[in-house]
Amino acid sequence: MTPIMSKSDAAELIVAARTRRGISWSEIADKLGAPVVWTTAALLGQHPMTQEQARQVCQLLGLDEPVEESLRSQPYRGGGKEVLSDPTIYRFVEALAVYGPALKELIHEEFGDGIMSAINFRVDLARRPDPDGDRVVVTFDGKFLDYKW
Amino acid sequence: MTPIMSKSDAAELIVAARTRRGISWSEIADKLGAPVVWTTAALLGQHPMTQEQARQVCQLLGLDEPVEESLRSQPYRGGGKEVLSDPTIYRFVEALAVYGPALKELIHEEFGDGIMSAINFRVDLARRPDPDGDRVVVTFDGKFLDYKW
Amino acid sequence: MTPIMSKSDAAELIVAARTRRGISWSEIADKLGAPVVWTTAALLGQHPMTQEQARQVCQLLGLDEPVEESLRSQPYRGGGKEVLSDPTIYRFVEALAVYGPALKELIHEEFGDGIMSAINFRVDLARRPDPDGDRVVVTFDGKFLDYKW
Amino acid sequence: MTPIMSKSDAAELIVAARTRRGISWSEIADKLGAPVVWTTAALLGQHPMTQEQARQVCQLLGLDEPVEESLRSQPYRGGGKEVLSDPTIYRFVEALAVYGPALKELIHEEFGDGIMSAINFRVDLARRPDPDGDRVVVTFDGKFLDYKW
Amino acid sequence: MTPIMSKSDAAELIVAARTRRGISWSEIADKLGAPVVWTTAALLGQHPMTQEQARQVCQLLGLDEPVEESLRSQPYRGGGKEVLSDPTIYRFVEALAVYGPALKELIHEEFGDGIMSAINFRVDLARRPDPDGDRVVVTFDGKFLDYKW
Amino acid sequence: MTPIMSKSDAAELIVAARTRRGISWSEIADKLGAPVVWTTAALLGQHPMTQEQARQVCQLLGLDEPVEESLRSQPYRGGGKEVLSDPTIYRFVEALAVYGPALKELIHEEFGDGIMSAINFRVDLARRPDPDGDRVVVTFDGKFLDYKW
Amino acid sequence: MTPIMSKSDAAELIVAARTRRGISWSEIADKLGAPVVWTTAALLGQHPMTQEQARQVCQLLGLDEPVEESLRSQPYRGGGKEVLSDPTIYRFVEALAVYGPALKELIHEEFGDGIMSAINFRVDLARRPDPDGDRVVVTFDGKFLDYKW
Amino acid sequence: MTPIMSKSDAAELIVAARTRRGISWSEIADKLGAPVVWTTAALLGQHPMTQEQARQVCQLLGLDEPVEESLRSQPYRGGGKEVLSDPTIYRFVEALAVYGPALKELIHEEFGDGIMSAINFRVDLARRPDPDGDRVVVTFDGKFLDYKW
Amino acid sequence: MTPIMSKSDAAELIVAARTRRGISWSEIADKLGAPVVWTTAALLGQHPMTQEQARQVCQLLGLDEPVEESLRSQPYRGGGKEVLSDPTIYRFVEALAVYGPALKELIHEEFGDGIMSAINFRVDLARRPDPDGDRVVVTFDGKFLDYKW
Amino acid sequence: MTPIMSKSDAAELIVAARTRRGISWSEIADKLGAPVVWTTAALLGQHPMTQEQARQVCQLLGLDEPVEESLRSQPYRGGGKEVLSDPTIYRFVEALAVYGPALKELIHEEFGDGIMSAINFRVDLARRPDPDGDRVVVTFDGKFLDYKW
Repeated sequence: MTPIMSKSDAAELIVAARTRRGISWSEIADKLGAPVVWTTAALLGQHPMTQEQARQVCQLLGLDEPVEESLRSQPYRGGGKEVLSDPTIYRFVEALAVYGPALKELIHEEFGDGIMSAINFRVDLARRPDPDGDRVVVTFDGKFLDYKW
Repeated sequence: MTPIMSKSDAAELIVAARTRRGISWSEIADKLGAPVVWTTAALLGQHPMTQEQARQVCQLLGLDEPVEESLRSQPYRGGGKEVLSDPTIYRFVEALAVYGPALKELIHEEFGDGIMSAINFRVDLARRPDPDGDRVVVTFDGKFLDYKW
Repeated sequence: MTPIMSKSDAAELIVAARTRRGISWSEIADKLGAPVVWTTAALLGQHPMTQEQARQVCQLLGLDEPVEESLRSQPYRGGGKEVLSDPTIYRFVEALAVYGPALKELIHEEFGDGIMSAINFRVDLARRPDPDGDRVVVTFDGKFLDYKW
Repeated sequence: MTPIMSKSDAAELIVAARTRRGISWSEIADKLGAPVVWTTAALLGQHPMTQEQARQVCQLLGLDEPVEESLRSQPYRGGGKEVLSDPTIYRFVEALAVYGPALKELIHEEFGDGIMSAINFRVDLARRPDPDGDRVVVTFDGKFLDYKW
Repeated sequence: MTPIMSKSDAAELIVAARTRRGISWSEIADKLGAPVVWTTAALLGQHPMTQEQARQVCQLLGLDEPVEESLRSQPYRGGGKEVLSDPTIYRFVEALAVYGPALKELIHEEFGDGIMSAINFRVDLARRPDPDGDRVVVTFDGKFLDYKW
Repeated sequence: MTPIMSKSDAAELIVAARTRRGISWSEIADKLGAPVVWTTAALLGQHPMTQEQARQVCQLLGLDEPVEESLRSQPYRGGGKEVLSDPTIYRFVEALAVYGPALKELIHEEFGDGIMSAINFRVDLARRPDPDGDRVVVTFDGKFLDYKW
Repeated sequence: MTPIMSKSDAAELIVAARTRRGISWSEIADKLGAPVVWTTAALLGQHPMTQEQARQVCQLLGLDEPVEESLRSQPYRGGGKEVLSDPTIYRFVEALAVYGPALKELIHEEFGDGIMSAINFRVDLARRPDPDGDRVVVTFDGKFLDYKW
Repeated sequence: MTPIMSKSDAAELIVAARTRRGISWSEIADKLGAPVVWTTAALLGQHPMTQEQARQVCQLLGLDEPVEESLRSQPYRGGGKEVLSDPTIYRFVEALAVYGPALKELIHEEFGDGIMSAINFRVDLARRPDPDGDRVVVTFDGKFLDYKW
Repeated sequence: MTPIMSKSDAAELIVAARTRRGISWSEIADKLGAPVVWTTAALLGQHPMTQEQARQVCQLLGLDEPVEESLRSQPYRGGGKEVLSDPTIYRFVEALAVYGPALKELIHEEFGDGIMSAINFRVDLARRPDPDGDRVVVTFDGKFLDYKW
Repeated sequence: MTPIMSKSDAAELIVAARTRRGISWSEIADKLGAPVVWTTAALLGQHPMTQEQARQVCQLLGLDEPVEESLRSQPYRGGGKEVLSDPTIYRFVEALAVYGPALKELIHEEFGDGIMSAINFRVDLARRPDPDGDRVVVTFDGKFLDYKW
């Protein structure tokens, strides 16, 4: 009996295979017919995949059964505070520090007392051309949940 | 000589005046002709206002000169880690923990080595009606900056 | 213009009035016709009250308008890590440390990939008589939310 | 001489065997005739098992003697702060942050000065059907202990 | 309405009165007919006192009603990590770091799986004369509680 | 050349051998003619042993030379904050949080300005029968050291 | 007897006076005949000033004797980790995280084993025009100190 | 399939090869025709290299393909708080603690509300001869970015 | 009844009086006939003074009774981690990080298993003239205590 | 190509060889003709050695080339906060907490605004016989550096 391969080990193998075969995250997502942020997050270990999805990914990337089993397993999500200081990720953290309280005020003003769900939720990323330099546009889209006793 | 009123003291007076007079953040933003997330963030202490903007806000809310002077002053931005555990704000933190590494991968795949600026940047919040419950839609929109030596 | 009284200052006055007048949390909850855990949490600053609820509480306890205004305001929830080391509260923290991963496994086994909502949620506390010593019975009851993109 | 297999290594093997053989936590608990939360917690490393219990689990899952020996050993309980940020577990943490002080007030009001034991204690988890979405119901049930010098 | 005086403010007044009147902790304990460690801890804010006890202390020390009311109120216990670095207290912390795991092993060897209660518990401090220098002898005495589901 | 086996590796082997051979900490201490808390702490890595003591332990437990060498080496004492959250050890931590300042007051009242030594020091653990449940009695006994310039 | 005004209180009054009188940091530095980064740092509380310097600053800004006395006093330098998350300051922190180890390598390659002094040290800030956007140029200039026993 | 060699493992091999072959960071930078601080940072894992750059480095140092592949991969930047306490790096940290707020004031005075970019950015290190001891001169040079909504 | 003035408030008044009257720490120590490091530490709040010492200090500095009472009271020692980042103090912290383990090795080599007492202890500071720049010489001198059960 | 052996791995081998061959730190220092604290610190990984010194140490202790190479390499100094809680090292930490601010005051009084260098610096340890118990005498001796812009 061997343990199930950890999600982070599986992610390392996926990144290596993807790089060596020259396959983009978008191509994997297209293959699965799934949104690209969801797919990337799942392959990095943040969502469980169905057996069919896991099999397709492993076929495409030439990975074998232990990776497939790992992709299907239930994750512990998040973790990894140390990644938050990477500059590309940190700018999102800084944006929350600056605009978080304003978002809270405006959610309460528009919707009442409650939150944006992070479970019934999706994220999208797009490139918006701009003469002054193209822009990264990230959309958080979650169901409003009101405090209901 | 007295110190300039702190941004957090000014914000408390603004929140109190806004509540008692029944004026929404949107109405203040409309009055200034400025985006509502920017306006709310500025009034909570995260952006300096011009003299004209500060004067308009104080007139509308019945606040006097020390608040106006405070609104015009240059802030120390961010701070306040303790606000991140408020459930309404925490869901954004959790979304970053779950999707941050995926966003990093996709920014590099689409744009190359670099970041989304948090300075040449805007945030919008909208309500999207949905039969299963309306949704909070937050858009982060920042210029891509590539690592350039 | 004065700031709105902070939730913690209001809570201190409520505790003082409650003690001096000999009124229990249950009696306040009965007066409001609201669940006792909800009522206590709200009076300690964790939920906003309606104008009518705030007025009733202040009448009952002999508190005046600034407390009423504070009770109606929108809270920053949580905070206060230092309270978690109080022995009465710490036992719940310890229970999570010991049983948290088991609860996660069983939620996924029974419901699939998702969480117990802490927003569409209620808590109850009861005393269960027992010959070996009465028991504290606390029930967490939240809607299951599945990860849905 | 080799060290006793660590509780976390044993837990990884148990999870792997359980998944591959398609055996649920409930089925293991039934086999042992023990409560399911207790059983799951014990198999994840939080309680020592008797020799008989450990043997039954290992038989059922096809695991060998080192796992059995590990299951019987005395644990260091808790640990693992990093698991608390997993969304499924975090909602319990958030509930404590919001309702912990209220529970303390009500325990003292009902029972006097003391605590709910986390040792003479049990936890149960149930699914409650609800037309608006089924609910996760978790019950903490501990003996009241009064401060007694 | 004024808040109840905080336990730490009351403790500061008690220490001041005790010092100025030259009354020892032991004398206060004798007056109350209570153990001296319990009495000292209670006066420093760690235990609620009965009305009679609080009145006797205030009479003895010449303190007035707000201190008495504070002494009777229910405390948040513990807190104050910063006091642990005081050398007199730190030596106990160091002793736990060095001997804590050994005490755990021996409690389990002697009593089985469980803990020493810190609620059904007492502490005593004595001076033991010794030709090589007198000794501080501190006894922790708590009921054994076994893990019982 | 190989490094000296770490104290924690040696402790794991000692615990494994002790368990498999069914030898108690007390029996080892008796064999050595040393106090049981001291012996247990030393075997868990907190005190160096003499060559003779280390040899006797290894003989009794069937362990070989690298363990013996490790037991004789000088330790870094303490460490391991994570063990402090184990419930059996945590109750001592909690007792210090509640009673530490009182012990400081009483040490100063009885002995003057100084500390209880944690070096010229011993700890004992005993079981005291009690009709309401037997009690764990732990005694800290250290030489008083006064601040002396 | 009153305490000396704290450096941070003095800095707040200096910032207020500077803003209200419309005097720049550069003008103050010119008045003193001192480098502008040194002057600004000193007025924010990081260096003691001579009596003559302190008098000149107070005259220019219309501040009185307690500020002058504070400016002359010896500071505790640094402090204030919370300022490091302000975006304008954070970019320097990030640059250290990315380039710090490279600077260490190159200092050792060029100078041998040692450090750049932060005491025998100066900092300058300049604006360098650039058609793609002007640049902030900050120079750290410290004496090399080699490890010398 | 094997994972891509980590940036830190690659950096260790580069440092070893560089030392054993007696090749300086400057020589590597010259070979690449790239700035020396950039080159050193990239080889320590902070920047991705082009295929051509990675090949040249590996040829020069006698390293093989896995190092080359690692050098080309996209890094997580920063990390490693523990390196900040190395005395050679710490002096920069201390300089930020002492001069950071002054730099912020002067950037705002000279450029307005904004930051020095750490992305469109370069660092240089030079030796400046000085009769009192040569000096380490480090220049941070980044594009000014103004807050622009 | 008023609380005893805190040690830090007393220290601020002492520093202010010392500065305004132009009296050095050495002069105060001479007046008391006590070592200068001890005296300075005591006046900054780290040691209790006798009534006679406290009176002499207050007379010399023109301070009144509450300061005298504060100086005589028993301190909580240490505290204030934030002072450790002041560069003048930090150099001692850094020296411990670099040389602490070596000192431990040498204490054990020379004295056996034990510690240097920080209670039966003194510190001295001297200036040693040196043609390359005078030197700060600080001596820690503590009684060796061996681990003795 | 293999990485250079880490300083901590080298230190472990040195400690093992030293112990097994019965060679003291002083004997190694004598062999090198270097101060004993410097030698011990260098062998524990805090200073680079010359090729000649490294060779002599390895010859004396019977260690081979990888250790020699490691000893010559440039260290990251310090690190290891966890060692600071070892009682033998902690007493120095405590002494800094108690006497650090007094040392700062006296350095400024005697030398003016500046620091004791920790680079141009030496440490010595001696045993001073004393009828009441021998004493550990540790001397910190560093060049005074004044703040000089």
